Amino acid sequence: MASGSPVGSSAGPVPDRAAADRAAADSMAAIARVGGARMAERMAAVELRLREIAAPDQHALATVEAGGKRLRPLLVFVAGLDGSDDLALVRCAVAVELVHSATLVHDDVLDAAPLRRGRPTVFAAAGRAAATATGDLLFSRAFAELAANASVEQLRVLSAASSALARGELVQREDAFDAEVTVERYRERCELKTASLFEAACQLGALAAGTPPIAGFGRAIGIAFQILDDVLDVSGPVERTGKARGTDLLDGTVTLPLILARRLDPQLGGLDLRAIVDAEAICDRIAATGAIEAAREHALGLVAHAKAGLAAGLGRGQRSALELVADGVVERYA
Amino acid sequence: MASGSPVGSSAGPVPDRAAADRAAADSMAAIARVGGARMAERMAAVELRLREIAAPDQHALATVEAGGKRLRPLLVFVAGLDGSDDLALVRCAVAVELVHSATLVHDDVLDAAPLRRGRPTVFAAAGRAAATATGDLLFSRAFAELAANASVEQLRVLSAASSALARGELVQREDAFDAEVTVERYRERCELKTASLFEAACQLGALAAGTPPIAGFGRAIGIAFQILDDVLDVSGPVERTGKARGTDLLDGTVTLPLILARRLDPQLGGLDLRAIVDAEAICDRIAATGAIEAAREHALGLVAHAKAGLAAGLGRGQRSALELVADGVVERYA
Repeated sequence: MASGSPVGSSAGPVPDRAAADRAAADSMAAIARVGGARMAERMAAVELRLREIAAPDQHALATVEAGGKRLRPLLVFVAGLDGSDDLALVRCAVAVELVHSATLVHDDVLDAAPLRRGRPTVFAAAGRAAATATGDLLFSRAFAELAANASVEQLRVLSAASSALARGELVQREDAFDAEVTVERYRERCELKTASLFEAACQLGALAAGTPPIAGFGRAIGIAFQILDDVLDVSGPVERTGKARGTDLLDGTVTLPLILARRLDPQLGGLDLRAIVDAEAICDRIAATGAIEAAREHALGLVAHAKAGLAAGLGRGQRSALELVADGVVERYA
Repeated sequence: MASGSPVGSSAGPVPDRAAADRAAADSMAAIARVGGARMAERMAAVELRLREIAAPDQHALATVEAGGKRLRPLLVFVAGLDGSDDLALVRCAVAVELVHSATLVHDDVLDAAPLRRGRPTVFAAAGRAAATATGDLLFSRAFAELAANASVEQLRVLSAASSALARGELVQREDAFDAEVTVERYRERCELKTASLFEAACQLGALAAGTPPIAGFGRAIGIAFQILDDVLDVSGPVERTGKARGTDLLDGTVTLPLILARRLDPQLGGLDLRAIVDAEAICDRIAATGAIEAAREHALGLVAHAKAGLAAGLGRGQRSALELVADGVVERYA
C-alpha cells in the first residue's frame, strides 16, 4: 500500500492493481537507471536463460514465461552490481528465480489455485502430478544451473535457502490454527519462508561479484516484504490484492496483525481460528485495534534499519540501487 | 521373482514377501561380507546421518526411519569400495538416499498412498501440504549435505540426476494412456526416472573415492531394476508385491510387457487403456503372449551386459560386490 493511503476497509481513494503495476514498473525502471545498461542486459539475459532451461518442458516453460517481478534476480544484481563476471551473476539470478518459481508451483498445487499472474497455474492446466513434478524439475535445474559456476560456497548458500523455504512451509502448517503463535515464532517463519531466499540472493550476488556481503540487508527486507504481504491480506483492498481479505485467517495462518491485535482486543484474544465464518469482520476488528499500522511500522522499521546498516564502503551507485529496492519493498510494489 | 518360479497368475509355490525380505537380507549380508567391516560401518553411518539431518522435522524423520533397502547408498559404497575418505562417501550416500526419499514422499502425495513400507505415509499422517514440503525439505537437504564435500562435480552429478527424475515423472504423465509408446520411449523413461539416480550413485562413489567410474554399470542395472519392477506389476503375485496386478495399467502407465505383447496379440494391439475394467484379465492376456518372459529376458540381458562390461582394472573385491548387487537386482530382492 502506498504510504499515506488509508488502511483497513475505510473509504478513500484506493490504488488499483494496474496502478500498482505501473508503480512497480517505475520502481524497476528507476533501479535500472541506477544500474545502467549493464543491469538491463543482465535482466534480459535472465529472461533468455530461464526460457532456455525450461524449454524442454511445456509446463516449466509456461511457468517462467508467466513472468513475475523478478525481484530476487534484481537483488542478485544489485548485490553484485560492481562485479564483472556477468555470466556468473546471471547464473545466480536464474538459480534463485528457479527455486522461487518451484515453490510457487508447489504452493499452487497445495492451494489448488486456478490462476497466478493472470494465467492458469500448472496445477490447473495439467493437474497435481504434473505440477508437483514441474516444481521438482525447476528446483533441480536451479542447482544444475548454479553448479556451472563451480563454487561450492554458492551451492551451499542456495541449498541452505531451499531447505529454509521448505522448513518455513512445514512450520506454517505446524502452527496452523494455533492462535498462540508468538511474534518470535512468526518472525522465524518469515525468515524461513521468505527472507532466506532474499538473503541468499544477496549472498550469491556478492559472492559471484567478489564484493562485500549484504546478507543482513537481504534478510531484513525479506522479513519486511513478508510482513507487508501479511498486512495486505488483512487490510486489502481486494482491488489491490486480487483476493478476498482474511484469506490467511481462513487457512489458519496467524500473522503479525492478528498477533498484535490479540493483545489489545480480548475478543480477538479468545478467537477460535477454526470457527471463523466472516473473515472480513475479523479483519475489521484487527484494523480497529491499530494493529495493521503497528505491523506496517514494524516492517518499515526493519527496512529503515537495513538501509541505515549498509556498510559505508559500498559504492554510491550500489547504495542508491539498494535503497531503491528497499523502498520498492516498502511500497509493496517491489 | 526368484529364477525358476512360475510367472503370471499360474499356480505353484509362491515366494511371499517375508521370504523376499529374507532373501534381500541375505543378499545385503553377502555384499557386506565382500565389502568387509568398512562397508557395514559406512552403512551404519548413513543411518545415523540420515536421522541427524531429518531430526528437526518429525515427518522427515519418520520418512528416513521407515527405512528401505538403501540400495542407492550401497551402490555409492560399492562404486567407491576402495576409497579411503569415509566421510565423503557417506555424504554422497546420504545425499542420493535423501533425493530418493524425497521423490517417494512426493509420489505418495500424487498416489494418495496410505502406506509405504508398512507405515503411514507422510501424506496419510500429515496431509498433502506437509508431505509436499517434506519432500522439498529432503531434496534441499540432499544438496546441503553433498555441498559439504566441496566438489562441484559431485553437485553437478546430483542435480543432473534430480532433474532427470523429475523429467521422468513428467514424461510418464505425458505418455499416460498412450498405448503407442515405443520401446525406445519406454527405455528413455526408465533411464530418467530410475537409472539416472543409480548412475549418479555409482558416479558419486567413484568421484568421492577417486576410483574408476562405473556409471554405465549403474545405468544398466537401473534400467533393469525398473523393467523388473514393471514386470512384477503384470506378473504379480499379490503376495509378493503387496498390490493388485495391473496397477500401472489402471494408471495408464504403459510398460515393456504391454508394449511387447501388443505386437503379438491383435486384441491387445487395439486396447483402449482408458476403457480397462478388469486389469487382471489384461495382465493374463499379456502373460499369455510370453511378453513377461521377454521383458524379463531384456532386463537379464542388460544386467549380464553390465557385469561383462566391468573394466578389467577393477579390484577383485569390488568386482565381486558389483556382481552381487547386479544379481540382487535380477532377483528383484535388491
